[in-house]
Amino acid sequence: MNILNKIMKPQSIAVIGASAKDGTVGSEIMKRLTEYKFQGEIYPINPKCGEMYGLPVHTSVLEVSGEIDLAVIVVNSKFVLDTVDQCNEKGIKGLVIISAGFKEVGGEGAELEKQLTAKIKEYGMRIVGPNSVGIINTNQSMDASFAQALPVKGDVAFSSQSGALGCGILNILKDLNIGFSQFVSAGNQADINAEDLLEYWENDENTKQIMLYLEGIVNPSNFRKIASRISKKKPVVALKSGRSAAGASAASSHTGSLAGADKAADALLKQSGVIRELELKDLFGTAQAFANSPLPKGNRVAILTNSGGPGIMATDALCEYGMEIAKLSPSTTEYLKSYLPAAASVKNPVDMIASATAEQYQKSLEACLKDENVDMVMVIYLLLMGETDVNMAKAIMDMCAQYPDKPVIGVFMTTADFFNKLSGFETVNMPFYPYAEEGARAMKRLLQYADWVNKPQGKIPVYDVDKAKVEKIIANSAAEGRDQLTTLESIDVLQAYGIRACKYGLATSIEQVKELGNSIGYPVVMKMTSKTTSHKTDVGGVVVNIRSEEQLENEYNALLKRLEDKGLLEGLEGVIIQEMVKGSREMVCGIATDPQYGPMMMFGLGGVFIEVMKDVTFRLAPLTDDEALEMIKSVKAYHLLEGARGTKPAQIEQIQETLLRLSQLVNDFKFIDELDINPLLISEATGEGVAVDGRIKVRLEEAKLSLSCTCSSCCC
Amino acid sequence: MNILNKIMKPQSIAVIGASAKDGTVGSEIMKRLTEYKFQGEIYPINPKCGEMYGLPVHTSVLEVSGEIDLAVIVVNSKFVLDTVDQCNEKGIKGLVIISAGFKEVGGEGAELEKQLTAKIKEYGMRIVGPNSVGIINTNQSMDASFAQALPVKGDVAFSSQSGALGCGILNILKDLNIGFSQFVSAGNQADINAEDLLEYWENDENTKQIMLYLEGIVNPSNFRKIASRISKKKPVVALKSGRSAAGASAASSHTGSLAGADKAADALLKQSGVIRELELKDLFGTAQAFANSPLPKGNRVAILTNSGGPGIMATDALCEYGMEIAKLSPSTTEYLKSYLPAAASVKNPVDMIASATAEQYQKSLEACLKDENVDMVMVIYLLLMGETDVNMAKAIMDMCAQYPDKPVIGVFMTTADFFNKLSGFETVNMPFYPYAEEGARAMKRLLQYADWVNKPQGKIPVYDVDKAKVEKIIANSAAEGRDQLTTLESIDVLQAYGIRACKYGLATSIEQVKELGNSIGYPVVMKMTSKTTSHKTDVGGVVVNIRSEEQLENEYNALLKRLEDKGLLEGLEGVIIQEMVKGSREMVCGIATDPQYGPMMMFGLGGVFIEVMKDVTFRLAPLTDDEALEMIKSVKAYHLLEGARGTKPAQIEQIQETLLRLSQLVNDFKFIDELDINPLLISEATGEGVAVDGRIKVRLEEAKLSLSCTCSSCCC
Repeated sequence: MNILNKIMKPQSIAVIGASAKDGTVGSEIMKRLTEYKFQGEIYPINPKCGEMYGLPVHTSVLEVSGEIDLAVIVVNSKFVLDTVDQCNEKGIKGLVIISAGFKEVGGEGAELEKQLTAKIKEYGMRIVGPNSVGIINTNQSMDASFAQALPVKGDVAFSSQSGALGCGILNILKDLNIGFSQFVSAGNQADINAEDLLEYWENDENTKQIMLYLEGIVNPSNFRKIASRISKKKPVVALKSGRSAAGASAASSHTGSLAGADKAADALLKQSGVIRELELKDLFGTAQAFANSPLPKGNRVAILTNSGGPGIMATDALCEYGMEIAKLSPSTTEYLKSYLPAAASVKNPVDMIASATAEQYQKSLEACLKDENVDMVMVIYLLLMGETDVNMAKAIMDMCAQYPDKPVIGVFMTTADFFNKLSGFETVNMPFYPYAEEGARAMKRLLQYADWVNKPQGKIPVYDVDKAKVEKIIANSAAEGRDQLTTLESIDVLQAYGIRACKYGLATSIEQVKELGNSIGYPVVMKMTSKTTSHKTDVGGVVVNIRSEEQLENEYNALLKRLEDKGLLEGLEGVIIQEMVKGSREMVCGIATDPQYGPMMMFGLGGVFIEVMKDVTFRLAPLTDDEALEMIKSVKAYHLLEGARGTKPAQIEQIQETLLRLSQLVNDFKFIDELDINPLLISEATGEGVAVDGRIKVRLEEAKLSLSCTCSSCCC
Repeated sequence: MNILNKIMKPQSIAVIGASAKDGTVGSEIMKRLTEYKFQGEIYPINPKCGEMYGLPVHTSVLEVSGEIDLAVIVVNSKFVLDTVDQCNEKGIKGLVIISAGFKEVGGEGAELEKQLTAKIKEYGMRIVGPNSVGIINTNQSMDASFAQALPVKGDVAFSSQSGALGCGILNILKDLNIGFSQFVSAGNQADINAEDLLEYWENDENTKQIMLYLEGIVNPSNFRKIASRISKKKPVVALKSGRSAAGASAASSHTGSLAGADKAADALLKQSGVIRELELKDLFGTAQAFANSPLPKGNRVAILTNSGGPGIMATDALCEYGMEIAKLSPSTTEYLKSYLPAAASVKNPVDMIASATAEQYQKSLEACLKDENVDMVMVIYLLLMGETDVNMAKAIMDMCAQYPDKPVIGVFMTTADFFNKLSGFETVNMPFYPYAEEGARAMKRLLQYADWVNKPQGKIPVYDVDKAKVEKIIANSAAEGRDQLTTLESIDVLQAYGIRACKYGLATSIEQVKELGNSIGYPVVMKMTSKTTSHKTDVGGVVVNIRSEEQLENEYNALLKRLEDKGLLEGLEGVIIQEMVKGSREMVCGIATDPQYGPMMMFGLGGVFIEVMKDVTFRLAPLTDDEALEMIKSVKAYHLLEGARGTKPAQIEQIQETLLRLSQLVNDFKFIDELDINPLLISEATGEGVAVDGRIKVRLEEAKLSLSCTCSSCCC
């Protein structure tokens, strides 16, 4: 049996540290449990026995004769370990530890938490907390929290990593009439964390939607596995805070300097199908949409309104969010004309003018819902002299009930108490917002989630590659104590993994330079390769479009002179003479590693624009084929790839494969820390993406450790 | 005397079409006037005399013995003209016409509105409307509207171009406790429009802030003149809807295709110092900030909170909006340590943890307000087990009152009724929001407005230019019936206005081609010039980096062949041989003309990226020196100009002058419809922006008309 049931759906609860004294946590928990009328047994535990809240008090759980599913612990942190021992003796398997003074205060607290974790592992218990503000299950009438507001029953399960914020959110949910099934304040997550809760709620029939407030993600790859599965069944919406945390500013590559923990978190949530909200109010707005709306079949929206202004504003917002303003069928507009006044507009947005009645709203809504050209309807109502807002809402919901397959979003510009009155309605079968912009956002989220649900699961392909060659190259570099591969080595690595890079050769003398130029064929590119200088263009280390042997000789000599002047001649290994791929479109792709989230892929606009335009996107490795394609299509520069202004369309599949092969590379060699292919030049002749330059950096210690065990060819 | 006073501050009001019958507009207006206790005389006018709302009814204004300042007209539109005649006879100068059925219904209604406009001009009257929902002046206790909610007195003046929306907004303002001084539903704006109201409110001492809902702007240049003056005295905040209106999609230039009416409106509002909000809720949020807050001296924010989570979210939002998280002085952190519990965080964000008392909030707030490193304070309060929200708000406002020079923004995550309770407070001296993100936005708006107020007025310079030469070029082109100048003509025009363009010459034979190549000096660029082909690169009409006479000859012959194959040889005028300016940074600048807003300047990233990256910005001409500089600094590509990755910093002042000279050009020649300088290449040698290519299109009929009168050299 799942022990989490003991916590989430207990038949009996002991409150250890229960109190009758107002203003204490022990009394707040008791009040909530009794006020909300928990239907199982409640055992207040307190050294002073007697009675409180009409219940007999026991001095210890051991004195309770009945079975106890869940112990809610609110004693001082220094008594928690002993209390846990007693719980174990009593056979209690589920704990919610409200007590604070653990990891969150550091030092001794952190030590205490370690002991606690060890103990519960030993006892086979599961715990929420410590430093939790409690849990709620509205279907059990259980409120074991100290939030201010009593909960509204509904089908949203909500986990918060911040206790106080969780309480604040519960207050707001009540005001917005968003009902929930379960609430867990996860606290320090010594045991149960967001991933456990996701898995628990996956099959909870009372939970139709999951809402998360996250500050950190314990195990990103596990989260991805679980969340991407569950989000196909139920919407998962998250607010992950900490966006402004300083990124990996010490990175030496482009990919590294543009990456950072929040980019990784963002990629993780995207790849897990979790809808990320950046603002708290949007978290609620989205929850309202999912709670009360079916998923749309398309993005064509009809707008009904009793005032022109909000119709224009709705159009603005819908277009901004990528929706289409539906073109109503002729039969619909004819029908609308038949009963609306002459001053009304029967084109979308349908402006039924200020005199619009509830009946007119119903007829027009039905016409739109029946119209094959309409996927969703936004119904705007301004409280003017006509029908009351409440009656109008009822009329619209009645019609909505007859067409349960198309989303209808209400935008009611009225007094705030309308939204409070909604909670008194017998049924609310559509979401209501005060502003058109919020309604439009909600539609966008419904559409986004419908896309995710309908999208087939992507695949992670495995290509035939020369892994041994890469091992050898890196082992060699590691043996020399270099964490940075040379350009030449980097290009070799890419080619070993089947990535299209241009023809090249290394030359260390003028004779070799000329020989290579002639064998590759002009025009060629000359690039310095150095163990000490990494950004070659900054020192004039790259010369392009060399069209003859004579020019090549001159440029080579000029380069040596420049490096000498700058004192950089020392590290020079030679120059690479390279096939010159003609093309004007420079993309970039690469790998950066986040200490917590692991390797991450980047793709976007390359060349000198990378850091100025920041037109790049990230996904965590390993990439699925879908994710690679999505990356390519999600940057603005994709329009360049499609072939803007007379250029040849790029080979999108070949670029996708390049990303997937890179993903395989970093999956095989986890110690690759950073990798840049900049530019990945789009050949004007073939449309291929060609790696014209490459830089790879490894984590040296890890590389040594890893290669010393598996590699037959390295130096050790 | 200003007749608008008769409308806005009347001593006596006649309601023509007053009614005692519930649900009619005539009764609603009477109810509002009497319920809100208008302190002047009210004269209900209705053919059926008697009494209503305790007042004697007259059958006509002519029967009223006293003087009447304002007539509010609610009769059927067909009686409006006669009613206006009677008002004139009675000597009434101010009218508010509620009656609908005018321009908004088209046809006969539009005709009726014309007659109405003529009549009031003849009579020297001023009117609000028709199709208005009325006006309100809270300082006169006058509510002559049919909005649902009675108004809250305050210092925001508000004009709405949509009647019903205006009413909706009044409802919301009441809920948000935003008080206002005056409200005008401008209706069809047959006479009084937003510009008139701005001017009226400029000196209204009861109005500290102006809020506008705009659908169109009657006279953009007049609006700019008025609003840019008034916005220096009082904040003007506007929501201008219609963002999604189709742009100038038929434009042939880059500038034209990226421009569009909303870009123009946006530029106008920016240049007028009007704060534009895109969402209605933000309009209110900003109004709350200006209503209750001083302007900040800088962007360093201290955050006080009783919960860590919202502190992180506030940090995220503040950073996103360009604020700095203040580094508290050592003395402040020492002081905070002296009374906050050990588990509190005394670094910014200051987390006073869940046990924080009102006294701790006060002390911490005072410490931050005294701290020289802090410009603004965000005070976050989560309603937990401690102090009530109302008491906490009072405590904070008490402290805030002692330091009236620094903005303090409250973020109270509590139940919605807190915000209603605010209206019961004796004084509210700071804005409160339910979410940290909204508080951060408000701070950004305060800062933005402070910047505008502190910025000196820009100047429009006048350069010494060769206007006659441009007249001649255009007259010549016009005489040939061409609206599109050739590249050569375009470059001549630019040079006549002192804009740096590269050396060039036109050649029509292989001999001339070679001669020019040799006189300019290699490398050169060869560009076709044609009266029929405008996007030259699309047909391979531009060849760069031609390094020798031999190469030049080959390329010229190849071009002729290409054009012949494509059937484009016909329109070819010749080729331009041009100095090759070396540089990798391609910018764009240009002019596009909006039918309503007039000529508009564009600046941004050029080359092949223009339409993909859309990294461009717009301002209406004429440009001030400040605006030109702002344009340059506001695009992402500005970082390229600063000299990223080892390139030479561009000459920003010279680029600024280029924009100003272009502005002067289009001001002198208003019939220039579109102009592109693409690229404006940044010379790697000098850092100058050099016009390497130019395209100019004129409105032919206007050009002919204009030049035939003033130009001595044209053909006519």
